Formats: sequence, structure tokens, C-alpha cells
Amino acid sequence: MAGPIFQALPGFRDFTPRECAVRNYLFQTWRSVARRCGYVEYETPILEDTGLYLKKSGGELSSQLFRFEDQGGRDVTLRPEVTASLARLVAQHQRDFPKPLKWFEIGQCFRYEKPQKGRGREFHQFNVDILGEVGPSADAELIALAIETMHAFGFVAGDFVVRISDRAAWIDFAAAHGIPEEAIPEFLGIIDKIEREKPEILAEKLAKFSLTLVSVRAFIADPANASAAYLAIYEDLSARGFGDCVELDLSIVRGLAYYTGVVFEVFDAKKSMRAVAGGGRYDTLISTLSEGACDMPATGFAMGDYVIRNLIEETAHTAKQLEVWLQRNAAACDVYLVLADEAQRPAALQLVTQLRRSGISADLPLGTPKVAKQFQNAEKLGARFALVIGSEYPELKLKNLSSRLEESGQAATAATWLRNRLLEPDGPLLA
Amino acid sequence: MAGPIFQALPGFRDFTPRECAVRNYLFQTWRSVARRCGYVEYETPILEDTGLYLKKSGGELSSQLFRFEDQGGRDVTLRPEVTASLARLVAQHQRDFPKPLKWFEIGQCFRYEKPQKGRGREFHQFNVDILGEVGPSADAELIALAIETMHAFGFVAGDFVVRISDRAAWIDFAAAHGIPEEAIPEFLGIIDKIEREKPEILAEKLAKFSLTLVSVRAFIADPANASAAYLAIYEDLSARGFGDCVELDLSIVRGLAYYTGVVFEVFDAKKSMRAVAGGGRYDTLISTLSEGACDMPATGFAMGDYVIRNLIEETAHTAKQLEVWLQRNAAACDVYLVLADEAQRPAALQLVTQLRRSGISADLPLGTPKVAKQFQNAEKLGARFALVIGSEYPELKLKNLSSRLEESGQAATAATWLRNRLLEPDGPLLA
Repeated sequence: MAGPIFQALPGFRDFTPRECAVRNYLFQTWRSVARRCGYVEYETPILEDTGLYLKKSGGELSSQLFRFEDQGGRDVTLRPEVTASLARLVAQHQRDFPKPLKWFEIGQCFRYEKPQKGRGREFHQFNVDILGEVGPSADAELIALAIETMHAFGFVAGDFVVRISDRAAWIDFAAAHGIPEEAIPEFLGIIDKIEREKPEILAEKLAKFSLTLVSVRAFIADPANASAAYLAIYEDLSARGFGDCVELDLSIVRGLAYYTGVVFEVFDAKKSMRAVAGGGRYDTLISTLSEGACDMPATGFAMGDYVIRNLIEETAHTAKQLEVWLQRNAAACDVYLVLADEAQRPAALQLVTQLRRSGISADLPLGTPKVAKQFQNAEKLGARFALVIGSEYPELKLKNLSSRLEESGQAATAATWLRNRLLEPDGPLLA
Repeated sequence: MAGPIFQALPGFRDFTPRECAVRNYLFQTWRSVARRCGYVEYETPILEDTGLYLKKSGGELSSQLFRFEDQGGRDVTLRPEVTASLARLVAQHQRDFPKPLKWFEIGQCFRYEKPQKGRGREFHQFNVDILGEVGPSADAELIALAIETMHAFGFVAGDFVVRISDRAAWIDFAAAHGIPEEAIPEFLGIIDKIEREKPEILAEKLAKFSLTLVSVRAFIADPANASAAYLAIYEDLSARGFGDCVELDLSIVRGLAYYTGVVFEVFDAKKSMRAVAGGGRYDTLISTLSEGACDMPATGFAMGDYVIRNLIEETAHTAKQLEVWLQRNAAACDVYLVLADEAQRPAALQLVTQLRRSGISADLPLGTPKVAKQFQNAEKLGARFALVIGSEYPELKLKNLSSRLEESGQAATAATWLRNRLLEPDGPLLA
């Protein structure tokens, strides 16, 4: 047999209904946590002027861009990240909102990378930013949201840890060790690789700054080197009851050039090298992108959908929570009308309309399959109840498809009857 | 002052928080109607192999494509529509789902057109399809969803009408008038323009088939020419109580070549030429796109976000429903903690965490603004209540920001207290 001739592009995902339901679980959780923490949602275009990204990253991402010329001759790019667009949007609308702005976005980004487990050429990202507040209370509020998000997925202290650092500590270190300001990005680039690069290569690079790997590691290991901002953040998060979710880790500086202060990453505690989310302060980026038209301190983080989903599915209690949610939310319908007598189709159509109008997810056969086949379909669709309409109409029979218990009722009151049954999901159905 | 240097591309939208909330209103309504009617959600990639679109449309859309070569040398395109991807997905997974499949998707599409009111270069579309059922009950079920969607936005019979036609009626007409099968697409192309083209041009084109404009218009005007499928659909929808929302209109054939039978459009009744949604049967497309690997009858429709949003905002009762929804769903938070004594910040942090954990959208100042400024911010953020924490802590003061009434309560029971108040949105707050 010939197969389908077209397939999704490498690194791009088709979301079949179950996959789409898992995606919706992530999106709904992200959205609901952000909203109860007082963040409002925005969205920016998926396609932008390429210059927006080249200006921001200094070319770091440019080799991974889906970049092309549109029909109008514009140099355009599928967004590799959202912060540049956010900066543009905030610069345009800076007077319209009271500060600080607490904004979030859930959207798709695109990077031309080698597809592998846990990484595609497209991914969804939860982007959260606080803009217009320079103090560490904003960083703490942001990190609190990252922690609340992990909790909302069912993770508990011990499953994950937020490692917090501050570039300010390294800038002080650099000043104390005679590293000139213009060399600080290069120096931070070495620190960024301290967990991954071979010691002899690190030592060689540090020697250029008259530093040893031992002295740098000693600086990282000493809690006395925590910045004032870190201490304020720790105190704030402790007051919220989140003190056991965070720790100081000065080895974190994050790769991108635009971070200016506190940076952090959320790690899976079991596989300690896997970052679930990360972010930090970028107090100068909005000014840079707006050529000084808007000067706004900012702190933000992003969480991608690939790693968090894998972690949820690999952790027993979070996987269980997802499964329970899918049972409730991924069924095609809750009530399936079994048409035992085709002559009653007009009544069934009227009834299904009533149920739907009252908010019940209800369906019925479109063709004329046999009754046994209709019950099979009801189960395949994940329905909790089959509502049988036959020659006894307006008397109906309701069957609980898991307990197999049955009861009778009247069509005129079916909506209320069914609503009550759906509100008692685990209780026994009267026979 | 220099303005921001980057802007969104022409025809692309930034969604500021209010715009994003309106978008979410559309998405949430679409999703909730589809789910209660027994449809499941899927999603396909935004970027696809260009061949998928060229094969489907016969080149009709090819001048409007955002098409480029990716870094791997692939000819790729930002999707102009979703049906081609759906066909691919269903062909790949045809054995995994009981038929009929009732699937929906909410996603963005891209067409390089001249941006104008009611049309951009990107738009969101609600796509709904029923696959694997050839009978008119599937078309009726699909049209019922279109009607339920209009009702969910607050439109009533009289605000809109679904005009239904059937290409089968025209194919019979063509056979009776000696039009050869291979000329039928050309003939349908003439009918498609019958409301828009000049009569003399139509007459000239019809003369080629030995037809007159009068005879064709007479065919359209005669209800006796309704197809058997139309009559079955009308009967089905009437049983659901939707008879007054639909009418026969044989002048509708829809432009795209792949429609094979029943077609329909949802029209704004006041501006009768504005189509809000449209669709129809495409029984051969999935077979074509899969080179015969999957032969699946199908019927589907799409509703874009531009026209429906304009119609909602221009219609008094639907605009009112949107405003009420925005008041409830677009506020940054429901409860704003006013910190009257900075020494109580740790208590405020603990309290805001408790409120959020109990599902209440709550926020607090990150800096140290004066109390009057905090109240102003609470109002700007759309909060319904200000919860004042001062030196009397753990006693708190709650102020209803619309009625200005105040009451006192205890921090230990604040979550329950606030939940109760939020559940009585319109009732008086005890002074």
C-alpha cells in the first residue's frame, strides 16, 4: 500500500487529539498560574523583521534562524524567541500601563537545530516578564511564579530546585581581580562553561586573566559571595514558604549577553543537569532595542514545553495528575446518546441540543450503526455515560459505562439529571 | 523623542493585554462550543512542505504564499489554511480513531495579501471537520456547530443566516443541459460569481453552454431544485430547533475546486454580503492528498477571527456580552494587597501566596509606593477588592473598589473570606 506522500517537516510536530490535550494541559496550567499571580497575557507576531533578532543577540542565534525574504522584499524571520518582540511592544506602549508590568505569553518559537529527543525545530514557550521595577522584589516575584508553576504540575520541594546567581557578584569579582570592563563578557563566557568544559581548557582561559580554576571554584563555593539582591530574594521567597526550593549557585551566569543582574535556572533535582526553565534580569535590553526611546528595567524567564513535559511524564506523581486531567478533559464527550430506535432521531437531535446548551458535552451517532456498536463507540470516545433513546421515549435509560449500573429518567428533565450525575463522578449510580 | 525602531510587519498584529483577552474570548468560546458538541482538538505545524498546498489547491493560493527555502534546502510554506495538513494527518492515523472523526483546530494562517480592515497577512481560524461519514447527517451536525457557535457569542436568529447549497444540484443541472463533466468546474466558476459579476459578462459566459442568465436564475430561485441532501439537512436542523437559522441558496457553490457536495456560508443578516464562516463537503481531497492511501469522505468549515470579531463588536447585545466577559477575565487580578506598613511585607507575601494557592488571582506592590498610589494601582489593574495589611495585622481590612464599602477580617481565614466575597460579585459588602 502506498503511504501518505507528505509528512510533517523534520523537527515539527503533529498534535493528534491526545497530544493536543497534553499540550492544552501545559498551556492551561501555565495560563492559570500566571493569572492567579497577577500577570496579564499578551501575544506578538510569529514573523518579525530579522533586524530585531540580529540587534538583540549580537548574532548569537543567527545561524539557527528560519529567515527569508517575503514577497515585499522584507528580510523576515520566524521568531526564535519572544523577548525581542516584547521589548518592541513595551517600547511602543510604555505610557499605557501602570508599572510594573507583569506580562506573560504562551507561544511558538522556531530554531533550525538538529532535531533530537527533547528538542525540535519548533517548540512552545511560556514567557513571563516583570518590567519597570528594578528591585529584587521583582526577581523574587518572578521566581515565585516559576515555583508556583512547578507546584501546579504537582512537583514538590525535592523534585526540583531553583538555582539563583547574580552577575553582579561576578562583576565585583572581576573588578577586584583587575579584569577590564570590556573583557567581562568574555570572562562570563568562561564561567558559563565551568560545569561543561574540560578543566585544562578552563584553566588555560582563566590564566589569561591571571586567575586559577581553584580560585574561581572557591569563589563559587563560598556563600559569603552572594549578592545583596540574592539575599533579599532569598528572604522574600522564604516568607512565601519557598525557601526550600531555592539555592545559591554562582556557577550560573546564563549564556546570552543581555543579562545584567540576577539570573536563575529551574532544575530537575534527579537529573541535575537538565534545566526546565531559566531567566534573569535584562535592565538595558529594552533601551537598546528602542534606541533609547524607552528605558525600562526588566526581569523574565521562559519555560519550554519539551523538557517540562518529559519531566512530568517521568515523575510518578506528576504523571498521575496529568492522567487524571486527561481522563476528565480529553474525552470526545461525556454523554453519548445511543439511538435504539432510528424513528426517534428527531427526539435525539432535540435532546442532544438541550444537553449541549446546558453545558454538557454530548454526542450521538451520525449514521445508523447497531446498538452494540454504538455502545462500543461511546466507550472508545471516552464517554462516561450512555443515554439510551428507544421506543419508550420520552423515557430514557442511562448507563454508567464504568460501573455498568443503569437507571431510568425522563427526557424533559434530562439536562438536570445528567448534570447531577456528572457532578458525582465517583459516586454509585442508583440501579 | 526617537520612536521605537522596529514595528510589527504590515498585516501582522501585536496583541496587547486587552487585544489578547478579546482573542482569548474567541478561542475559549470556539473551544468550549466544539467540546460540548463532541469534537476533539488537534493541531498541525505552522510550517509545511510547499507541495502540500500546490497539490491541493491547484495553484489557486500560490501567489499569496509565505514561501521560502529553509536551511536544509526544503521548499517550505507558512500554512495558508489547515485542511491540507488535516488531510495529511488523518491519512497517517486513519486506523487509530473510530469513525466518524469529529475534529477541530484553532490556529494561525498566513497569506500575503494587501492588509485592509477585516483582513491581515495573518489571521486565526476555527477549523471544524467531520471525517468518515458520507451522509447528510454529518453536514447537519457540522452546520449545527456553526449555529451553536453563533449562539454562544450571543447572536440570535435574525442576526445571522446559514445559506446552504449543494453542488450535486448543479451537477444534475449540468447533466440535464448537456454540459460535459470536464467543463463542470468552469461552469461552477460562473455560478460562483453570479452575485458579483456584471450580467452581460455572465450572459456571455453562459452562452458558451447554451444557457441564459434568466434560466440559471430561475433554477436558483426554485426551491424544488433543492437536493435530497439539503432536504435531509433541513429536516435534521429543524428537529434541533435551528430551522429558522438556515435557508436554501443555490447561488452558493464556493470557489475552491475541491468541494464535492453540500456547501454553506454563515452570513451576517444585516450586511448580507459578509460571510462569517463557510465550508462544505470534500469527499475526494483526502484520497488525492494521500495518493489513494486513504479514501475518506469529509465535510468541514472555517471561521476566521477578523470578521466574527467585527460583527461581535458592531452588534449591541454581543458587544455587551464581550464587555461583561472582559470585566471578569481581563483584569490583572481580583484582589490587590495594599501594604500600609512595609514592616508587614513578610506577612503580605505569605498571605498573597495563600490566596493564590486557593485559586484567587491576587497581587501586591513590588516597590514601596504610598498607600494612595497603591489604591490607584489596584483600580488601574481592574481589581475588585483591595485587602489592606497594616500594623493591625493579623486583622485585615477589605475594601470593595466599586461600592467603596469596607469590612474587617482575619489573615488566618482570608482565603475563605475572599472566595466568598468573589462569589457574590454583585451583592453588597457588609460595612
